Amino acid sequence: MLRLFQPSANSKENTMIELAFSKNSSGLLPAIVQDSQTGEVLMLAYMNRLAWQKTLETGKAHYWSRSRNSLWLKGETSGHVQEVKEILVDCDQDTVVLKVEQIGGAACHTGHRSCFYRKVSGDELIVESEPVFDPTSVYGTK
Amino acid sequence: MLRLFQPSANSKENTMIELAFSKNSSGLLPAIVQDSQTGEVLMLAYMNRLAWQKTLETGKAHYWSRSRNSLWLKGETSGHVQEVKEILVDCDQDTVVLKVEQIGGAACHTGHRSCFYRKVSGDELIVESEPVFDPTSVYGTK
Repeated sequence: MLRLFQPSANSKENTMIELAFSKNSSGLLPAIVQDSQTGEVLMLAYMNRLAWQKTLETGKAHYWSRSRNSLWLKGETSGHVQEVKEILVDCDQDTVVLKVEQIGGAACHTGHRSCFYRKVSGDELIVESEPVFDPTSVYGTK
Repeated sequence: MLRLFQPSANSKENTMIELAFSKNSSGLLPAIVQDSQTGEVLMLAYMNRLAWQKTLETGKAHYWSRSRNSLWLKGETSGHVQEVKEILVDCDQDTVVLKVEQIGGAACHTGHRSCFYRKVSGDELIVESEPVFDPTSVYGTK
């Protein structure tokens, strides 16, 4: 486990950096996920206090799934976890950036490396990259 | 104006790429703002349909200010607008990445280049950079 995610040795209790979870009625804050090597933005997900705590404790990205309404270890189905190398916190403490190593090479459920694989061009969205994997082989048929 | 933001010439009407604004009860979607040259994440802001439309029309980043509850041309006070070079849209069409040139060199109201100027280190947040400008000289005293 990285020192990054451990409380300092002289802490009397397990203190945790506090984020402004109460700012939104949902208790969720956005987490921007960036490739630690290339700086490419891979995805955006949401964290509640539990997800934040689990991410700090384990060094693996945890989010709160809004569709399943449950804690979500990214990669729990596919094995494609995100190993967190660095965490940045914004001025208002209501958004974080996770710099990660994306195991398996793709963060998006479509098999694309990044969820942001389409670019605005006039009134169209242009797909800019090929999928890294076939989602049905990783997640099974839908 | 960039071709990027104009409807194609053969459009019969002023079509606009549709995002999933109705996904959140607030009608707001997050926009991740990234330096178009370095890939550094500068800030995160929120857009409603009007802000999205204004951004596409003008090539300058517009957001919805949740604190003022009004349309917000970034830089309207400071002159530090964001010139949008590229827009990426995610798989669910509920988040965008704006790649921008940040006029004035700093996106954060604290004078830091990025709002994400602090890094998690154990149970502390470490400030990693010096401010680019003195906020009181740009925004006046509070």
